[in-house]
Amino acid sequence: MAKLETYPLIGITVGDPAGIGPEIVVKALTQKYREISIRPIIYADRSVLEQTLCMLDLDLDLHSVSHPSEGRFVEGCLNFIDCQVVKKPVDFGKISALGGRAGFTYVDRAIEDALAGAVTGLATGPLNKESLQAARLSFIDHTAILKSRAAHREPMTLFVVDALRIFFLTRHISFREIPEAITRDGILSSLPLCDLYLRQLGIKNPEIAVAALNPHGGEQGLFGTDEIDVIGPAVRSAIDRGWRIKGPVPADSVFHQCHEGHFDGVLSLYHDQGHIAAKTLGFHSTVSLTMGLKFLRASVDHGTAFDIAGNGIADERGMIETLKVAGKYSNTVRSQIGLEPMS
Amino acid sequence: MAKLETYPLIGITVGDPAGIGPEIVVKALTQKYREISIRPIIYADRSVLEQTLCMLDLDLDLHSVSHPSEGRFVEGCLNFIDCQVVKKPVDFGKISALGGRAGFTYVDRAIEDALAGAVTGLATGPLNKESLQAARLSFIDHTAILKSRAAHREPMTLFVVDALRIFFLTRHISFREIPEAITRDGILSSLPLCDLYLRQLGIKNPEIAVAALNPHGGEQGLFGTDEIDVIGPAVRSAIDRGWRIKGPVPADSVFHQCHEGHFDGVLSLYHDQGHIAAKTLGFHSTVSLTMGLKFLRASVDHGTAFDIAGNGIADERGMIETLKVAGKYSNTVRSQIGLEPMS
Repeated sequence: MAKLETYPLIGITVGDPAGIGPEIVVKALTQKYREISIRPIIYADRSVLEQTLCMLDLDLDLHSVSHPSEGRFVEGCLNFIDCQVVKKPVDFGKISALGGRAGFTYVDRAIEDALAGAVTGLATGPLNKESLQAARLSFIDHTAILKSRAAHREPMTLFVVDALRIFFLTRHISFREIPEAITRDGILSSLPLCDLYLRQLGIKNPEIAVAALNPHGGEQGLFGTDEIDVIGPAVRSAIDRGWRIKGPVPADSVFHQCHEGHFDGVLSLYHDQGHIAAKTLGFHSTVSLTMGLKFLRASVDHGTAFDIAGNGIADERGMIETLKVAGKYSNTVRSQIGLEPMS
Repeated sequence: MAKLETYPLIGITVGDPAGIGPEIVVKALTQKYREISIRPIIYADRSVLEQTLCMLDLDLDLHSVSHPSEGRFVEGCLNFIDCQVVKKPVDFGKISALGGRAGFTYVDRAIEDALAGAVTGLATGPLNKESLQAARLSFIDHTAILKSRAAHREPMTLFVVDALRIFFLTRHISFREIPEAITRDGILSSLPLCDLYLRQLGIKNPEIAVAALNPHGGEQGLFGTDEIDVIGPAVRSAIDRGWRIKGPVPADSVFHQCHEGHFDGVLSLYHDQGHIAAKTLGFHSTVSLTMGLKFLRASVDHGTAFDIAGNGIADERGMIETLKVAGKYSNTVRSQIGLEPMS
């Protein structure tokens, strides 16, 4: 078994203090270090962590550090960077400018440390869009903050559930807009990034499958011609360039096949296609990675859940998985960041 | 443990003899009866079963019966109705009129016995559409045959993976046609059948969730208005009628929630929505039921796989699950067939 000091230092932001973020972070960190294989550094406020420990009736030591290297990694001790935004108990489940500003400050400070190499990668708790707006911040979400501060290439979301790895060609658009948003150029410009980001995870010479759009992949044009007109030709162009691409593969088997190891990643054509696969297979084990940054950022794939915040009933399994995935890949991503995309 | 004689008699058709159907049926029946909890009666030809046993190098007794009640249910014995269509070894993996005619005859004979109550329900191996056409039969698939011979109400496909049960509002249409095919009337006429068919499986007072179409259920119109314009109003009308309906529920959580037992079934809006969920969760354990017949018909959710037929490498796990599900529900469906739909 690896020695504790070899585990990567992971910066963990608790997200909006009025949401379930602090709760799931604290609960996840009651796991033994060896279970999650990281050395965790929390970015939060002392007051927020105290309130959370009190709410959960947990007795853990809070050890404030000014630099991640000062962490004391012993059972029962939570090391944290005290960001000094929130000074008294928050109202759980409430939108507020203070919550927005606090959540932003935790991420901002963690990004600074990640860029400086003081932590290897980040795991982030959920922010609340309305609270960010209330704080009059110009960022609508994590991706916007990370993109402005730490982009290395075009950031892309990568969902990971064990061996199933899913990229998205399109995402937050309506169902009706999807077919027109699937273009040959879009597929051909996404695939080199998918390939690069899989290599950044340490996968050598990855093979990527492109999902089909229509049922049974259109069945030779019987149920739609997008595979014949756009997706098939894009895949053939990719193969002609020497890239390791397969498809279009019918969407009801492509995710299973990836999970079984038949290829290394799937380019999903739309949000629900990949989301249904990941979250039906592993609702609590789907980890969202933001690739294309100067370091790895892993995240739970859920929001602040204001409706249940402060009740102690939030499910921390997603955060535990997120910490494990951050631990598994953050060093690799950092060492592979100089790789160039294929062309 | 239940006594062998209380297990339901299930008619099992091997499908097109040139496909993988006979192989997966025979392999599945090497399971102990107690594992699958049915008394199996195969509908096939002696020659087809002999060829399959030879190919698989299996030594099992073939016991031809003229009526299912004559079955001898002892280890190592396969009871079958000899349909006398195929008299000599077939060419595996080849489309042929003989294969089409044989596959059809097995089903036709099994339906006759199911209608007469000689078997409680059916489990079917895959037919091949081209072979059915080559045989100049007027049926394009199982559903057409079953509908013409044994329809009780409007047949509907129901996917079952453990507690996850999925109906489909639309199915074999192109992706671009989906939004227009989702109508208030369509949803309101499907839901009473979904409810009825869940009650036929023995679920009292079932609750059904309707999936959303757009990502995050459209997020209040931000990514599409189908939930606001059509799906939401349909669900509210259903609730106003006193039906137990929920939704629209975002598609990336509705299937997980059903699988966890939060409701009894999901009305999926399109083919891949439900297919991705079922087959990513349980590629080998997804069983397709045809409801609305005078008896239960369960089926594997794959085709004849001509490309691998005759090699002994077909995966029988889907057929084993199919037999178990047929055994679990066929008596219940038969006893509940007189139920009326809600209005």
